[in-house]
Amino acid sequence: MPLAKADLARLRSLQEKKHREALGLFVVEGEKVVGELLAAGFPFAEIYATEEWAGRAASPFAAVRRGSDFAKASTDKTESAPYLVTVTPAEMARLSHYPTPATVLAVGKISRNPLAPGAANRGLTLALDGIQDPGNVGTLLRIADWFAFDRVLLSPDCADLFSQKVINASMGSFARVKVHTIPLAEALAGVTVPVLGCDLSGEDVHALKPLRDAVVVIGSEGRGISEALRPLVTYYVTIPKFGGAESLNAAVAAAIVCDNLRRVTR
Amino acid sequence: MPLAKADLARLRSLQEKKHREALGLFVVEGEKVVGELLAAGFPFAEIYATEEWAGRAASPFAAVRRGSDFAKASTDKTESAPYLVTVTPAEMARLSHYPTPATVLAVGKISRNPLAPGAANRGLTLALDGIQDPGNVGTLLRIADWFAFDRVLLSPDCADLFSQKVINASMGSFARVKVHTIPLAEALAGVTVPVLGCDLSGEDVHALKPLRDAVVVIGSEGRGISEALRPLVTYYVTIPKFGGAESLNAAVAAAIVCDNLRRVTR
Repeated sequence: MPLAKADLARLRSLQEKKHREALGLFVVEGEKVVGELLAAGFPFAEIYATEEWAGRAASPFAAVRRGSDFAKASTDKTESAPYLVTVTPAEMARLSHYPTPATVLAVGKISRNPLAPGAANRGLTLALDGIQDPGNVGTLLRIADWFAFDRVLLSPDCADLFSQKVINASMGSFARVKVHTIPLAEALAGVTVPVLGCDLSGEDVHALKPLRDAVVVIGSEGRGISEALRPLVTYYVTIPKFGGAESLNAAVAAAIVCDNLRRVTR
Repeated sequence: MPLAKADLARLRSLQEKKHREALGLFVVEGEKVVGELLAAGFPFAEIYATEEWAGRAASPFAAVRRGSDFAKASTDKTESAPYLVTVTPAEMARLSHYPTPATVLAVGKISRNPLAPGAANRGLTLALDGIQDPGNVGTLLRIADWFAFDRVLLSPDCADLFSQKVINASMGSFARVKVHTIPLAEALAGVTVPVLGCDLSGEDVHALKPLRDAVVVIGSEGRGISEALRPLVTYYVTIPKFGGAESLNAAVAAAIVCDNLRRVTR
């Protein structure tokens, strides 16, 4: 049974944030990213794959059920395993977001986790303030994952967590890191633990003291930490500079701060 | 005098590496990147700009001469200041590499610097082994600039130094960092200083000793440090991991190693 036009249109529409929000779904395409998220246990709702991918996937992903009746799949809400819909290469070419179609495309449900009051007082929090480049946001999720931060906060003007570019750049960390999209001034309003801001005129990050509980705020490269957030920053840290570059990439700066924090807080 | 068709074709062809190599020229477009490179003193050969940009540029870039006679500009080899050719917005739209044309586009000469024998024995060298993502290569130039590395070596399979994406991501560091494109096994063959490789099973980078002269080798994320280079690596360093991510982005890993090296070698 070929894919219905309506399904094609729905799946293609998920490239845009407004449609993702309206449908509560997001899509990722490609063997690498789908494989990374499945390996991390991400509960996809629907998987569309060519015979080539479906054949290979059969044994490692036993939970994936094959089905061709999409109407049934989309109404059968009691199933937790994703429906694997086998499509022809021609259908995949129409579904695909890329000039060279992949062999698999997967749809997940968007879940937004509210931040429990006081949550940012426990453990390590990475707060991203207006990071608009999706590659940077994904790389920052990967950094938070590597350094075992307890959560990441995204200000609403960051790149959308559910965009394919963010998920790709996270290299699977999307499925492992707890992320909350929330206005940062609201999230950090009642916080009593140190709130570290990274900028160009703070204290030497090499002099950081051990901190079991802390928030690290990373601003955008162009604008820095936003005015509304500055009163909530307890102190600023700076990465010592030796040469001519005016600044560092936001993800690079965050990684250096995290490494310095983990060096003293194992 | 409108731009000749041949000039339009020549300028547009510079998007591709083979044409850049054939003509010995590269092109960058955009107020930000052209401004950064001019501010860093980069000697462009030709600048094409709308009246809007040219008017603003007149005072800060006094060395830029305005001219509309392109034929004269391209044969007058004794001039060191770039020719500023004022173009109409319609011409710029045809020159542009982007859907939304910028107000300025600049052409520079490609210069390849041979690596003097033994040069890598002096100071700090960052060697990039097969880093194919141009954004990563540019970010790595910026890191080398921030940490005042004396030079960067690019293996020939790295992204092309003269591609716009590399130059953009370097945020002006392209004009400040000494870069040599050279097979790394050849460049490092006679090196007597420590050659540090960054991988997942080396010594803790937090235990690094001061090193005034050293080479830091960064491999690609997918493949790591190439087999041919491994015998030349003196020892491996690893960034301590606390969470679930399998690896870090190459530029992120390099930045953490550079910060740790500079922490002990000020």
